[in-house]
Amino acid sequence: MANLAHEPGQPAHAALDDLWQRYQRCRSSTERICQPLEIEDYVIQSMPDVSPPKWHLAHVTWFFEAFLLTPFLPGYRPLNKAYDHLFNSYYETHGQPFPRPRRGLLSRPGVADIYRYRAHVDQAMGELLSQPGERAAEVARRAELGIQHEQQHQELLLMDIKHILAQNPLHPVYRTDLRSPPQSTPDRPHWHPYQGGVKEVGHAGAGFAFDCETPRHREYIEDFRLADRLVSNGEYLSFMADGGYARPELWLSDGWALIQQAGWHAPLYWQREDGFWHEMTLGGLRPLDLAAPVCHISFYEADAYARWAGARLPSEAEWELAASDRPITGNLLESDFLQPVALSEPAARPAQLFGDVWEWTASAYRPYPGFKPLEGSLGEYNGKFMSGQMVLRGGSCATPASHLRASYRNFFQPAARWPFAGVRLAKEI
Amino acid sequence: MANLAHEPGQPAHAALDDLWQRYQRCRSSTERICQPLEIEDYVIQSMPDVSPPKWHLAHVTWFFEAFLLTPFLPGYRPLNKAYDHLFNSYYETHGQPFPRPRRGLLSRPGVADIYRYRAHVDQAMGELLSQPGERAAEVARRAELGIQHEQQHQELLLMDIKHILAQNPLHPVYRTDLRSPPQSTPDRPHWHPYQGGVKEVGHAGAGFAFDCETPRHREYIEDFRLADRLVSNGEYLSFMADGGYARPELWLSDGWALIQQAGWHAPLYWQREDGFWHEMTLGGLRPLDLAAPVCHISFYEADAYARWAGARLPSEAEWELAASDRPITGNLLESDFLQPVALSEPAARPAQLFGDVWEWTASAYRPYPGFKPLEGSLGEYNGKFMSGQMVLRGGSCATPASHLRASYRNFFQPAARWPFAGVRLAKEI
Amino acid sequence: MANLAHEPGQPAHAALDDLWQRYQRCRSSTERICQPLEIEDYVIQSMPDVSPPKWHLAHVTWFFEAFLLTPFLPGYRPLNKAYDHLFNSYYETHGQPFPRPRRGLLSRPGVADIYRYRAHVDQAMGELLSQPGERAAEVARRAELGIQHEQQHQELLLMDIKHILAQNPLHPVYRTDLRSPPQSTPDRPHWHPYQGGVKEVGHAGAGFAFDCETPRHREYIEDFRLADRLVSNGEYLSFMADGGYARPELWLSDGWALIQQAGWHAPLYWQREDGFWHEMTLGGLRPLDLAAPVCHISFYEADAYARWAGARLPSEAEWELAASDRPITGNLLESDFLQPVALSEPAARPAQLFGDVWEWTASAYRPYPGFKPLEGSLGEYNGKFMSGQMVLRGGSCATPASHLRASYRNFFQPAARWPFAGVRLAKEI
Amino acid sequence: MANLAHEPGQPAHAALDDLWQRYQRCRSSTERICQPLEIEDYVIQSMPDVSPPKWHLAHVTWFFEAFLLTPFLPGYRPLNKAYDHLFNSYYETHGQPFPRPRRGLLSRPGVADIYRYRAHVDQAMGELLSQPGERAAEVARRAELGIQHEQQHQELLLMDIKHILAQNPLHPVYRTDLRSPPQSTPDRPHWHPYQGGVKEVGHAGAGFAFDCETPRHREYIEDFRLADRLVSNGEYLSFMADGGYARPELWLSDGWALIQQAGWHAPLYWQREDGFWHEMTLGGLRPLDLAAPVCHISFYEADAYARWAGARLPSEAEWELAASDRPITGNLLESDFLQPVALSEPAARPAQLFGDVWEWTASAYRPYPGFKPLEGSLGEYNGKFMSGQMVLRGGSCATPASHLRASYRNFFQPAARWPFAGVRLAKEI
Repeated sequence: MANLAHEPGQPAHAALDDLWQRYQRCRSSTERICQPLEIEDYVIQSMPDVSPPKWHLAHVTWFFEAFLLTPFLPGYRPLNKAYDHLFNSYYETHGQPFPRPRRGLLSRPGVADIYRYRAHVDQAMGELLSQPGERAAEVARRAELGIQHEQQHQELLLMDIKHILAQNPLHPVYRTDLRSPPQSTPDRPHWHPYQGGVKEVGHAGAGFAFDCETPRHREYIEDFRLADRLVSNGEYLSFMADGGYARPELWLSDGWALIQQAGWHAPLYWQREDGFWHEMTLGGLRPLDLAAPVCHISFYEADAYARWAGARLPSEAEWELAASDRPITGNLLESDFLQPVALSEPAARPAQLFGDVWEWTASAYRPYPGFKPLEGSLGEYNGKFMSGQMVLRGGSCATPASHLRASYRNFFQPAARWPFAGVRLAKEI
Repeated sequence: MANLAHEPGQPAHAALDDLWQRYQRCRSSTERICQPLEIEDYVIQSMPDVSPPKWHLAHVTWFFEAFLLTPFLPGYRPLNKAYDHLFNSYYETHGQPFPRPRRGLLSRPGVADIYRYRAHVDQAMGELLSQPGERAAEVARRAELGIQHEQQHQELLLMDIKHILAQNPLHPVYRTDLRSPPQSTPDRPHWHPYQGGVKEVGHAGAGFAFDCETPRHREYIEDFRLADRLVSNGEYLSFMADGGYARPELWLSDGWALIQQAGWHAPLYWQREDGFWHEMTLGGLRPLDLAAPVCHISFYEADAYARWAGARLPSEAEWELAASDRPITGNLLESDFLQPVALSEPAARPAQLFGDVWEWTASAYRPYPGFKPLEGSLGEYNGKFMSGQMVLRGGSCATPASHLRASYRNFFQPAARWPFAGVRLAKEI
Repeated sequence: MANLAHEPGQPAHAALDDLWQRYQRCRSSTERICQPLEIEDYVIQSMPDVSPPKWHLAHVTWFFEAFLLTPFLPGYRPLNKAYDHLFNSYYETHGQPFPRPRRGLLSRPGVADIYRYRAHVDQAMGELLSQPGERAAEVARRAELGIQHEQQHQELLLMDIKHILAQNPLHPVYRTDLRSPPQSTPDRPHWHPYQGGVKEVGHAGAGFAFDCETPRHREYIEDFRLADRLVSNGEYLSFMADGGYARPELWLSDGWALIQQAGWHAPLYWQREDGFWHEMTLGGLRPLDLAAPVCHISFYEADAYARWAGARLPSEAEWELAASDRPITGNLLESDFLQPVALSEPAARPAQLFGDVWEWTASAYRPYPGFKPLEGSLGEYNGKFMSGQMVLRGGSCATPASHLRASYRNFFQPAARWPFAGVRLAKEI
Repeated sequence: MANLAHEPGQPAHAALDDLWQRYQRCRSSTERICQPLEIEDYVIQSMPDVSPPKWHLAHVTWFFEAFLLTPFLPGYRPLNKAYDHLFNSYYETHGQPFPRPRRGLLSRPGVADIYRYRAHVDQAMGELLSQPGERAAEVARRAELGIQHEQQHQELLLMDIKHILAQNPLHPVYRTDLRSPPQSTPDRPHWHPYQGGVKEVGHAGAGFAFDCETPRHREYIEDFRLADRLVSNGEYLSFMADGGYARPELWLSDGWALIQQAGWHAPLYWQREDGFWHEMTLGGLRPLDLAAPVCHISFYEADAYARWAGARLPSEAEWELAASDRPITGNLLESDFLQPVALSEPAARPAQLFGDVWEWTASAYRPYPGFKPLEGSLGEYNGKFMSGQMVLRGGSCATPASHLRASYRNFFQPAARWPFAGVRLAKEI
């Protein structure tokens, strides 16, 4: 199937039926993520960037309602008209979004109400996808986008749940039944060489992609080298021990100002207890695993680390060149670690390109040459965020495997630390 | 019984037994206030001044644990040692309080945990109060203080629940079964004269009082007049219609700056719908009752209104002089309106001295001459707040009757609008 | 002459002539204060509370223009119409004041322009005061107010100049020719007893007073004791050495929050150099004089010190009772120390009631019973500041002697440290 | 001569002599810019981004002292050791810079002191440049950098002076003798096509360039079109009239949030007077010239305008490709308009590539592939600012001609409006 977000396909009944299966799996998967939560956990907004879990559950549902049911399902009646305001995230051209920093002030609709909202929309989506009308292609395209959107929120849910629980001095544990990480000692990273030239970058061919991954276009890339694994906690500790957070020459100016003002001197979620570093995880507080990839660092920290190490961050084009012919395997959501883990030996090298942590790149999140956002309100999905953010590549331990691609462009503000984000080094040849 | 907070009495077994009865009634009453809440409602902190309802439930319990059970009940074991940090409100000399603005970030302990905590402490309190030991007098004094403290939080709970629900565009209703307010048309207020002189002010004699109401002392009061009822919504609308919020000459400088910056132009919880003023109440959104006392205004608004009306706010001594020989009756918590209501006619005049709304006075909250705070950490209860706040008198529709006295000094920052607070006018003779 | 600010007198030609002499002396005195400044010094606003010296020079001039020349001198033409906006401090009912925090953004009018403005207004004031017209009494009353107003700004100029120069790591010296402080060792303070009762407080009789000092009224004062001198730097050091800034039980809640947030641990302008405490003064950086009164502390620090010392701050009524029959002598502006100094021995006791430092009192700045502000825009002079501030009494080393009275009520926000303010202790008997 | 900032040349005596001539011209030029200022103007810091003119005068002098005289001139004695702290802008590895937002709090050293400082350093620089020692090549390289640095501050001085004077409701005029702008009516812009391919970008060959312009490297550029002139005020007014500031679909998310919060609805310095748009210029308030290029807009406004116009901003590589073979002529500092002006007809097209306004590009300011900052503290010059900023190209009416190159990368935060910055449109083919 062609790029659903951009080119019309001709989904027959079978295609819609497949969509409906995937829709259902996606919806269940989201609810499974929330299953370990107490009702109280669903309500908290621990900082403006974080949303209450119940808001996520409702917002992804609203997306189907606003962009599929209301325009395409004849006679569709919303469960509650006010939800169109409450659960609009940032679509300014679709009414007035409820202010983001106030999401955590709403106790109602309650968790049960929101699960009812989900059921209401699920039923209507079943109807819509069982009746291939004239606009079936557009319906299919948007349903695909809605599923991908909900998958994004699956990762956001895990990020936000972790952040919410981490505020609590009681160290609540999200899940006690997570898989145990493998134990190993990482070898020294090696530099894997890549040959440059005029290369094609961006999404190609069949399958879904977001508008921001297109159009596929040419870029000139110089020869370069990439570390064959992620930077580990142990390596990051060496940076810290070498005064990494106290040496201005290692930092971008904005980053230096930020760490002074915020008092950062270690990654988010690191805590010293009884003289040893520990890390808050979705499985609770654990001793820091030195062999695991460092995680929950900002772009500024990734960049400073790279400078300290005599290297640099890869550009997103370099990363994509390296990853484009690799299988999408690794420590992803389905691995059920929900935490970056040490490399199992022996591993194919370069390792960890997909999964474990999103890799901060050197590239600002800007449009590709010839970029066209989607039409209408859906055009606000990606394009309007193309300032002030950096691109991350490769997915994390919280990313669903079916959601990832080599061309996938994730993006966050350079100060963000609550994503599962880490660093891989690059170098000139 | 003498002032429990200050002078030791000799509580016999009977007195302790009475305390235990009152303790139980108080605890039940608190829980009854929370009964209509959904679990999600318990978690929200809608502004730094507001606490999540579940925090209130735990904090009043902690008070008994920290100041009675731990010091006085041999072998008492806390349910969870971390609670001593989490539910310490502001007692800096008793460990480090959990930061107030972060109370709404804690999903755990959950609501069920907190009711278990209450039961655990209730059982221990039953033991303590059934065993009059050597320090029974001190135990009784502190138990009394703990009950009074919990009663304060009953009113805070209602204030906070109202504020939490009012953030929500869905206009959730706290209780649909509240009593219907009486309908009446207020007559013109009359000026009731009082003769001044050297008067005694402050708590006297038997019965509980907070330390800040003592010592009883002499003040010289000039002759004065007091309006014989509270200012009504209708009167406040006239102030608004006369440009009250746009005329700087009516306002204290701090108040003028505040209303510009905050964009205030009506009391909190007022909303115009379909061309008419409505008011958000604990019974839902209602058309504004012009005969009811104006409520949810700041000191600055009360003061500006008084200036506009050619009058002034009473001092707290004047108010106390007027109220000291009056019965403590009125629209209090037990009336179950949970909203100030129009005066039923005929009413004894001056009316509404107790109940309906706390009355902003002209007096800054400062210590009485010779004031001595309680010993130890309990000394932080009142004394340390004696700067930057104004005194309010008379109790409100959310104040338990048994908690009120003519000498009672409530206090809030002059910008606070979420208390049930209004205004009564005074004048020279 | 009766209280000019309130009661009409009948100033004959002689009275106006005397006013004109005093006007001229006052204006010269202001300019003498600015004489040591470089042009660059005139421009700086070191914090929102501080005004650039050239703004002070212009604002006091504007006061005469706006309240005397424009209404009373026929044919008066302002030098520049824009000045009526630029130099209006806070009279909201007289046009729109230029925003206070932006005063330091205006390079023009320049210093020379402003001296020309002064000359222009001086000439017109000479005309006005030489022609006793029908409204001579009102002219005299306002001219007196204008002179008193400019005297207030003489002290503000010295406070602000000190603050401006203190920002500068070069430690610039305002004047190198100040008198040398006397050297002495303070004896222990003694407690001077005062007998209470119904007392009259507030301005009485002839002579100028601000509206806020009136009406004279009765207050009941309990017997009390007052320390017979100010708290010294040495005593304040003992408080610091005893952990004064680290013990929450000594502090009002607002003060404790403030010192945490601001990182205060000593008075403003204190600096440790080479292991010894120094103090920035208008005569430059000097070793701390242990015998001199402590200065540049906030109300919160004064209050905490008093609590630490087992005493309290006096009320303003107590202070006035103690001072009302004392001559207005002491280390005032004319002493030309421009810094509080050690007590010369032998000194009459109680000492230092006037001069050296303003004494923080326990009294919030609120209206006296029956207070009426001046009519019209001049009513904004004092009354609108009667919230959120504390009263200080007694004048300082920067107060002109002719400006001071026993009934004088100065006021600042409790966090203010740039006034010349210190502390005298009081106690019950 | 090769790129002075990177590769050592072999400056003989003649080369140093030429440098000395250029040094002197540069220094005089800076002082000529300040000549119209009043002393008071030198002191103001109108926002944190702006520095007081006297600070600029001193800082560029400090640069020579810190990086040339102190390390290379034997026996050099600084005029004042404190200046090394006060006038260090942001070189964290060279001592601790005085905090930027506090530059406007320093009245001393005064203007005369700073001119003395300039003379002191000038004399020493004369000595240094007349004695070609062993390290002459490094001295020449740094002197060149110091001259270029001071030229940058010449433009900053004009930007800052304009901003300072614009705060003043008196509309002070910087210079009354500026050249009168030409009057003309702009024709419709045409789209000039450019052929893409693998192109070289970045500084090449001889002559000075900043480190951030290097290394010259290959980029793949698609075919594109560029408007043959800048966007005019008249065109920008059409955008405004079409609701440009009220249509979220035109804006980047950060830009939309900013214009709401800041209340922007026109370029900086535009004012409506008597129903017509005027513009504050260095020659005073003038009626808006519809034919002149729009100026003082942020990146967000440039980007929104381009979207409204159905076009986009050029990338910096596209711009450089278009400009690389064009002569560096246009409305630059030497034109002495100090304001963008209408195109004189007939003009070579594409027009206005150099001068008038810096052109916001679509490119984030990030390092070129293989970028190496200068060694030591000078490495902080450019590299550490490579996050959160956008590139601007082409120079402005305030840029010295000898300072500009086709490869020149200027950069500002996307919200900055006080640079002389405007917009040229680009399109795909």
